[in-house]
Amino acid sequence: MNLDILKNTFTSNELLTGDFGLEREGLRVTAAGKLAMTPHPAIFGNKLKNPYITTDFSESQVEVVTPAYDTVPKTYAVLEGLCDIVNNEIGDEYFWPQSMPCDIPEDGDIPIAVYEGEKDAEAAMAYRKGLIERYGGKKQLISGIHFNFSFTERFIDKLHAAVAPEKPRKDFKDGVYLKLVRNYLRYRWLVIYLLGCSSALHKSYIPECVSQMEPVGDDSYVLKTGPSFRNSICGYKNKIALFPSYRTVREYTADVQNFVDKGLISAPKELYTQIRMKAKGVDNILESLEEDGIKYLEIRTVDLNVFDKCGIAEKDLVFLHQFMLYLLVEEESDDADWQKEGLENEEKVAFFGLDPNLMIRQNGKEVSMTRWALEILEKMQKMDIELELGNGGVLKVMTDRVIHPEHTYAYRMAEIVEKEGYLKGMMRLAETYKKESHDTRYLLKGFDNYELSTQILIKEAITRGVPVEEIDPQDNFIGLGRGDKKTYVKQATKTELDNYITVLVMENKVVTKKIMAQKGIPVPAGEEFSSYDEAARRIGPYVGKKVVIKPKSTNYGLGICIFDQGGSEKDLLEAVEIAFEYDKTVIIEEFIPGQEYRFLVIGGEVAAVLKRVPANVTGDGVHTITQLVDVKNRHPFRGYGYTAPLKKIELDEQTELYLKQQELKFGDVLPDGKTVYLRGNSNISTGGDSIDMTDEMPDFFKRIAVEAAASVKAVFCGVDIIIEDYRDEKSPFGIIELNFNPSTDMHAYPYQGTERRTGEFILRALGLIEN
Amino acid sequence: MNLDILKNTFTSNELLTGDFGLEREGLRVTAAGKLAMTPHPAIFGNKLKNPYITTDFSESQVEVVTPAYDTVPKTYAVLEGLCDIVNNEIGDEYFWPQSMPCDIPEDGDIPIAVYEGEKDAEAAMAYRKGLIERYGGKKQLISGIHFNFSFTERFIDKLHAAVAPEKPRKDFKDGVYLKLVRNYLRYRWLVIYLLGCSSALHKSYIPECVSQMEPVGDDSYVLKTGPSFRNSICGYKNKIALFPSYRTVREYTADVQNFVDKGLISAPKELYTQIRMKAKGVDNILESLEEDGIKYLEIRTVDLNVFDKCGIAEKDLVFLHQFMLYLLVEEESDDADWQKEGLENEEKVAFFGLDPNLMIRQNGKEVSMTRWALEILEKMQKMDIELELGNGGVLKVMTDRVIHPEHTYAYRMAEIVEKEGYLKGMMRLAETYKKESHDTRYLLKGFDNYELSTQILIKEAITRGVPVEEIDPQDNFIGLGRGDKKTYVKQATKTELDNYITVLVMENKVVTKKIMAQKGIPVPAGEEFSSYDEAARRIGPYVGKKVVIKPKSTNYGLGICIFDQGGSEKDLLEAVEIAFEYDKTVIIEEFIPGQEYRFLVIGGEVAAVLKRVPANVTGDGVHTITQLVDVKNRHPFRGYGYTAPLKKIELDEQTELYLKQQELKFGDVLPDGKTVYLRGNSNISTGGDSIDMTDEMPDFFKRIAVEAAASVKAVFCGVDIIIEDYRDEKSPFGIIELNFNPSTDMHAYPYQGTERRTGEFILRALGLIEN
Repeated sequence: MNLDILKNTFTSNELLTGDFGLEREGLRVTAAGKLAMTPHPAIFGNKLKNPYITTDFSESQVEVVTPAYDTVPKTYAVLEGLCDIVNNEIGDEYFWPQSMPCDIPEDGDIPIAVYEGEKDAEAAMAYRKGLIERYGGKKQLISGIHFNFSFTERFIDKLHAAVAPEKPRKDFKDGVYLKLVRNYLRYRWLVIYLLGCSSALHKSYIPECVSQMEPVGDDSYVLKTGPSFRNSICGYKNKIALFPSYRTVREYTADVQNFVDKGLISAPKELYTQIRMKAKGVDNILESLEEDGIKYLEIRTVDLNVFDKCGIAEKDLVFLHQFMLYLLVEEESDDADWQKEGLENEEKVAFFGLDPNLMIRQNGKEVSMTRWALEILEKMQKMDIELELGNGGVLKVMTDRVIHPEHTYAYRMAEIVEKEGYLKGMMRLAETYKKESHDTRYLLKGFDNYELSTQILIKEAITRGVPVEEIDPQDNFIGLGRGDKKTYVKQATKTELDNYITVLVMENKVVTKKIMAQKGIPVPAGEEFSSYDEAARRIGPYVGKKVVIKPKSTNYGLGICIFDQGGSEKDLLEAVEIAFEYDKTVIIEEFIPGQEYRFLVIGGEVAAVLKRVPANVTGDGVHTITQLVDVKNRHPFRGYGYTAPLKKIELDEQTELYLKQQELKFGDVLPDGKTVYLRGNSNISTGGDSIDMTDEMPDFFKRIAVEAAASVKAVFCGVDIIIEDYRDEKSPFGIIELNFNPSTDMHAYPYQGTERRTGEFILRALGLIEN
Repeated sequence: MNLDILKNTFTSNELLTGDFGLEREGLRVTAAGKLAMTPHPAIFGNKLKNPYITTDFSESQVEVVTPAYDTVPKTYAVLEGLCDIVNNEIGDEYFWPQSMPCDIPEDGDIPIAVYEGEKDAEAAMAYRKGLIERYGGKKQLISGIHFNFSFTERFIDKLHAAVAPEKPRKDFKDGVYLKLVRNYLRYRWLVIYLLGCSSALHKSYIPECVSQMEPVGDDSYVLKTGPSFRNSICGYKNKIALFPSYRTVREYTADVQNFVDKGLISAPKELYTQIRMKAKGVDNILESLEEDGIKYLEIRTVDLNVFDKCGIAEKDLVFLHQFMLYLLVEEESDDADWQKEGLENEEKVAFFGLDPNLMIRQNGKEVSMTRWALEILEKMQKMDIELELGNGGVLKVMTDRVIHPEHTYAYRMAEIVEKEGYLKGMMRLAETYKKESHDTRYLLKGFDNYELSTQILIKEAITRGVPVEEIDPQDNFIGLGRGDKKTYVKQATKTELDNYITVLVMENKVVTKKIMAQKGIPVPAGEEFSSYDEAARRIGPYVGKKVVIKPKSTNYGLGICIFDQGGSEKDLLEAVEIAFEYDKTVIIEEFIPGQEYRFLVIGGEVAAVLKRVPANVTGDGVHTITQLVDVKNRHPFRGYGYTAPLKKIELDEQTELYLKQQELKFGDVLPDGKTVYLRGNSNISTGGDSIDMTDEMPDFFKRIAVEAAASVKAVFCGVDIIIEDYRDEKSPFGIIELNFNPSTDMHAYPYQGTERRTGEFILRALGLIEN
């Protein structure tokens, strides 16, 4: 296998495609950097069932897991989304950014994870307790990144055809992955050097390990010589080094079984290698490897990168992927002791790698680590150019890390710890990431090609462990749940719960009203006329009543007449005539004065109540209207289109006109405390403010909203009610409109008031969660 | 009350508005004009529950009943729709066009109507048998028109306010209707003259009556002197003349109760007056009249007009309505014998009215009927002008009938009978109407502002006696059924049976395919690409396979490449590049050769299967293509838009181009038997032919269609399947598309093959009918 084969067989697009998955572990900690003693947050549901957010060994050790995606950027973005969720859902706790633990208690006090409904629960718990006995509980708290990778089946097909079509496909495929594994083990020291980031410790860690580091005050210890304490002798390793054969799958499985039989490890999964071969079967890993072959590889070398909210930077992932391709083409030596050499190099680089003069072994010969590293990176650069992968920039960064050890994550982290102290330095980073997650909480990275309302629903589903299937992002179409409970959702509230005619009823205002009225729901009386004659025939009942007469599709109030004291037949018909100048259908409707409220009804419950206020600014005696708008527009929720819960206020002609009516100009300075409305309409889409009123609104009106939705059998329904005084049950009110596909994001992220978890209501209505 | 009050109080629109309802009775007869001895057609369901089509006294006497509408044209149109349904649903029988019966058997053989589930069935049957005893069975077979009329409540309100605001409203309203009744009884002779049309008889009628007429051969008898045998002494009347008081409601009810108590009639409903006052209550008519007041009036004078398919002409209805207004304003005389005089005039005019010198009585004085009639019509003309009713033309026709008795319906009918014989003449008319109904069977008069598919559904509902509520014609929105079973339907197949997401799934072809594939339904493999790069990454699996590559929204085949022998990766990507020139989304899809069939699946059943053939003509060796198209376009099913089941073929540029490819021009004469296609696409909307294949299609493929619909949980679904050879179950096939809101009219009225009752499937799926 050589570069030419890749070059001739694949397009660069195919080479950049694969199946990528990421796991990131991390401890939950208090604001002081102490291990959180609280249980895994209930909102994440049953740990065994949540495919995205679970725990590892300890109850306080969160593990986020991305599904497999075909590109690095998508996989990375989803990881970011998951980390944001964790940051936002762990209350006042923080997501510890480093591989080595925070301030931790002694073994007996480390909360071991409890899995509700776990299979063979007793045995499993005994296994976890056994790990404490064998390795110590503190070591179990070390966290890292797992990078799961496989080529696509199509890639294997083409490679098979190009290289060895005569071989059985399964053997060929296993051979490819075995080569990758062997080469990875040979070159893993480079990953440790480049990505290592566990060069500091807290005093509460295992004393024998702490003592290997340099104290820098404040219970802080640093490793100045090497990048990765986690990958050193004091990291998470088997008690004795184990070297199974990687020549064939069968030899490998036989060896591992032998280790187990000899009691060296308690189960195959206790073999802590830097890279694992994964099979289809999870419980019967060895049998499945033999039977089904290697499915994908799990790389376990990577430390959490404290300089990234996700624990790993995207460029490092890009590097790792190309590294896989490099390992695929790189010829293997026939050195017999390659496994031992690989382990020695690993441990040496982990502990002493920051020494630019470090010598390691290459096929038994001593070589400069730096020179060897640069050689590999040069080959990768050449590969990048030949295969047009576009990774030049990333490889340059890696080369820089080799030339300048002080640019490595490990070095920079040790510096921080030395300056700020271990807990303080790490907590500063944790706080930064938590704030970053909070500020962008209204969206979900990895899914930001969906409308906000769908992002919110996906976020809630992932949080609760409901599997999400992406069906068609362009159409905001997703699948939720598994098995029989699998259901499809479009635009967050279009579901199988609503029947088609209910939606069509709501789509037609005339029909909605007719049906509501038939069911005894209080709607403003009204009719549509399609001709003046028709109006003249039917205007009678409205004479002398408070009514609005308007063109059916009205813009900016043109052609609207309001008779709030009632009008004569002649006056009304005159208004009809005016309205017909603007549309071929004219509506006459009972006029109800008051404020309009949006009730979001989901599955017979009021999920939220909102008041919408027209775009406005409040003066401070100093700034002009334009300046005040600029400031208001900086709010993180304000954006454009479907990507933000609030919209930026635009100072356009209409605003100008509206201000002119108030004898104001953009440049005017408003007196302190004076609120000025910039538009007549209160739509959020034109910069209006949303104010949550869910708690303030009395049950009486909530019941009305629920009944209105029920009258057309709507499960998802935005009920618009005008109420003169919501505090008074006897206040005049009227249901103005029922809306299908109601906005949920304006309730989830209002300008003022409590943020409502609309996704929760949706998932509950769909029967996907219970509370 | 005078004309000025109407003029000052109402607009002409208000004067033309009212509540109108029509009932038309008519006998079912054999082709020979004999009374049908078959039961009421089962398709009309239970006679007691069908509000539109039921029977009267005899099982063979169909009665159609329109709901109440606010204008004459709508009411009339619905009547026409109902008559069309009867004509089309009574098999090889005919709807007898005259009031006086056809060739009827003796009393004992006249089938008395049986009502399944009738209340007090025995008593009711005894009542009907009693009628035979008292009046003879033959008289019960006389049919007529009932014209139900009331002013709108708003009209009464305004009149009340204008005329006598001090009076209690109920008394005022009763007073208005009582005046109308009294005046109607005074002037009814005019209606008999103008609309009378029972001037002929068959020999089989009651001998004493037959003997009053003039024999004209062929068992036929005519009345040359008068217009309405039905309203003469031999018509449907009480044994002795009864004159209840019409001064107040209370006096009236007391008198009627008195008639019953004395045994003059068996029940209030046996009082056969020319006009009836109707109340809210039906079973307790007298009590309800007193309690609730008069609700509407029923005019029972009108003979069936043999010259109209509906038994009454629209202009006669217009006249009757204005006649009501005339009676409202016309002052009453204080002649004590007015009731007797009215009856005398009625009988005289009915039997002798065609004599231009006939004298009748006006307040005891002898006057010329002609002069008096012209006087009334002149007043009505004046009224028409004053109130701007626009009825001038109608009144002119009526005046003409007075001046020329030979222009009356009665005279003209007698002429026909004299010339053609009674049965032959009437049957010729019946046949004409039946053919007319058959030729327009695809639409439903009175509802032709709806799309054809909705008309078909409404027609089926009305036929089966399922109540139809018109919700929004513009939106093709209707309500069906009553009470708990009431359900709403838009565009015939948008119902509460389909859930919203199912529809959205079908709306998105990519999503549909994904879900079908997940459920194991055989769909052509395929994908969408939104960029060339994406396509390049994923094209692999399609290399060497039969595929089509096309822009997502394709027009006229531009940018489409078909690889029916498979293509290389390079070829496929070239095709992708071409397709991207036409759209920003490109589809690659497995290519399946064969013919496309549309399976209409409703509620898990295949309602119909259709093959669509591109617009085409077949030559005869004589006509040019243009001429052949003209002929084909004359087919009654071919029209424009949503109003016809087939569309007219248009010879446009595309057709020209398509012919050019075949080296043909519009002016070419095609050889006999040669079929030429005028377009590449087979859409019905561009003039394609629809060919029903329901019976030919094997169950195997029908099951596939049902499963495909089920895979997305669709209740209403148009499944498009390409099948290479439908006669062979092993034939390659693939499901191309699932369509919500599938067309039903193309199955109901195909160009070739059996017409399928799609409405039946819809009603059954909705649970509104059982078979």
